[in-house]
Amino acid sequence: MTLVADTVADFTEGGLIARIQERLPPAPAWMVVGIGDDAAVVEPARNRLEVLSVDALVEGVHFDRAFTPPAAVGHRALAVNLSDLAAMGAAPRLALLSLALPAALPIADFDQMISGLTALAARHRVHVAGGNLTRSPGPLMIDVTVVGTVKRRQALTRGGARPGDELWVTGTIGAAAAGLQMLKAGKGATTEGTETNGGHGQNRLPCPPSSSVSSVVAPCVHRYLYPEPRVRIGSLLGRNRAATACMDLSDGLADGVHQIAEASGVGAIIDAGALPVESAAREWFDRRGTDAVVAAATCGDDYELLFSVRPRDGRRLAAALRQGDAPLTRVGQCTVDRAVILRRDSGDHPLPRGYAHFR
Amino acid sequence: MTLVADTVADFTEGGLIARIQERLPPAPAWMVVGIGDDAAVVEPARNRLEVLSVDALVEGVHFDRAFTPPAAVGHRALAVNLSDLAAMGAAPRLALLSLALPAALPIADFDQMISGLTALAARHRVHVAGGNLTRSPGPLMIDVTVVGTVKRRQALTRGGARPGDELWVTGTIGAAAAGLQMLKAGKGATTEGTETNGGHGQNRLPCPPSSSVSSVVAPCVHRYLYPEPRVRIGSLLGRNRAATACMDLSDGLADGVHQIAEASGVGAIIDAGALPVESAAREWFDRRGTDAVVAAATCGDDYELLFSVRPRDGRRLAAALRQGDAPLTRVGQCTVDRAVILRRDSGDHPLPRGYAHFR
Repeated sequence: MTLVADTVADFTEGGLIARIQERLPPAPAWMVVGIGDDAAVVEPARNRLEVLSVDALVEGVHFDRAFTPPAAVGHRALAVNLSDLAAMGAAPRLALLSLALPAALPIADFDQMISGLTALAARHRVHVAGGNLTRSPGPLMIDVTVVGTVKRRQALTRGGARPGDELWVTGTIGAAAAGLQMLKAGKGATTEGTETNGGHGQNRLPCPPSSSVSSVVAPCVHRYLYPEPRVRIGSLLGRNRAATACMDLSDGLADGVHQIAEASGVGAIIDAGALPVESAAREWFDRRGTDAVVAAATCGDDYELLFSVRPRDGRRLAAALRQGDAPLTRVGQCTVDRAVILRRDSGDHPLPRGYAHFR
Repeated sequence: MTLVADTVADFTEGGLIARIQERLPPAPAWMVVGIGDDAAVVEPARNRLEVLSVDALVEGVHFDRAFTPPAAVGHRALAVNLSDLAAMGAAPRLALLSLALPAALPIADFDQMISGLTALAARHRVHVAGGNLTRSPGPLMIDVTVVGTVKRRQALTRGGARPGDELWVTGTIGAAAAGLQMLKAGKGATTEGTETNGGHGQNRLPCPPSSSVSSVVAPCVHRYLYPEPRVRIGSLLGRNRAATACMDLSDGLADGVHQIAEASGVGAIIDAGALPVESAAREWFDRRGTDAVVAAATCGDDYELLFSVRPRDGRRLAAALRQGDAPLTRVGQCTVDRAVILRRDSGDHPLPRGYAHFR
């Protein structure tokens, strides 16, 4: 007798939708028509602007199923979108899922992927309002659209920084990039095709790391697999107008500095010594002879926020820090001169741009 | 000297976004933050509910690039979503695009795909508010999220039909299914993996059809490639409350009747002789010995609307017909008995369900 695991191909579209629905809390009162009709109908939030974002995770580009737990795929697919809303100062409200599923995807993996997503959605009170399911003849793709709200004049853009504004970053950087390298090393096989913004599986490492190694590996791998979008601090920065510009570090801090500088028409000087490189990541990069500062600044997947603050708004920033859930670090300053500089002990250098998607 | 056509891999993400932006009209006044930031920010419509839908077109599942002009891929990707909004009685407002692009996609195809989408968007005053671009290691995927608006109590669902209500359909059915068969026949090669809801290329038929054949082929192929979402009539039916339930025929009329019957807790009798089968499609099916009524009723891609009407609301329906841009045909009636019946000269038969996505 052969036991064959059930795959998504053993289910109807309705059967798969039912498995998503049973993982959702009851619909909020503002949902007028939910999953199961041609479209979702919602009552808009009063006196708020609406903020919309869409982002896709594609197998073989953003994650490798060989070392990515399905729950991490689901978590990341929503997290990257919530991070975009956080960068606008918006509070998330609802999400739409569009899934392209290979026929051979085990139903257990489907369930775990959905659970990873709905668990994060529940923590941020994001309602899954609808979506779409289709077969994929190739990679697994998970496309998430999120809608959030923000009060007028509290939306944060990339374009509001002025010369003299300080540049700040939430949390630490570099851990996700180190985590990806660790997962690739653990997998053994090369995964050259996988971009740094992927998702990977700590609990599937071929060899469980020794305890001395695991103090370096565990935090980095976890940060890579389950990034925490900075929803609370983003919302606080918008609400008390502490920040003049903001964006998320999906493509790395260096990319973020360049984007804010270009959108705002300023330059910037980043102080290499001030960058909050995650200590476990620094240790990992140091051991391999990699420049930890450059690696942490140019690699993506951190999903921290980079924002600019007028020096006179220090009290507002202190309030956001008190009420928020993330450490904040001043890393540099905006300048009249349009150059974007990394200041090191060895002198000033142009800040590299980091990853470009299509070249 | 070898000339190699430029592909999307020769461009940066920013370069591709710029090619999309140059195909868009100026942003409407309600766009607060447009393409280029972490997310789009919009002013909601006043005193309206919001209607949201997402749908994906996947190469090899919904279309075959061998005989699908890129413009048709773009057109269809938006059309299927606008059709969902039309089925809710909603007026479309904005769209978000998420594209997963094979590196070898010629830039000319990318441009035509975007032009096909933006041309339809312009006709329906849908603003492309943002999106996402990524590489695909496999098929081309185009995922569109649309947001529309509808007045409270004017949203049409699938669940409002009552026994005795008449069932009506817009336009004609069967042309898209026949068009797909024609394209497959023209291509020669089998495309068994392609679902009926695909998109295909009339202008790439290997042999130009003779003029007598083309009067059958041209209307069907065109309907398959460039379906016209019933935005105007859907909106009218919602506004004057002529319809008690409504859905679009993306998966065929038979599926639509079953869905409305299940959601409304009724049965239905469909009069086979009344079905508005497109004459060119009927001719095509007849020639091949296919039952034209069953083929037209069970195949998808028509993107017409099926809706129910209280017999006493005939005047409202007449008003919608006068102001609308589509013929309307009465095809049956809702019943207390929960069976869903196709009534033919030969007697009553259960109405087949049509296509199921994952089995």
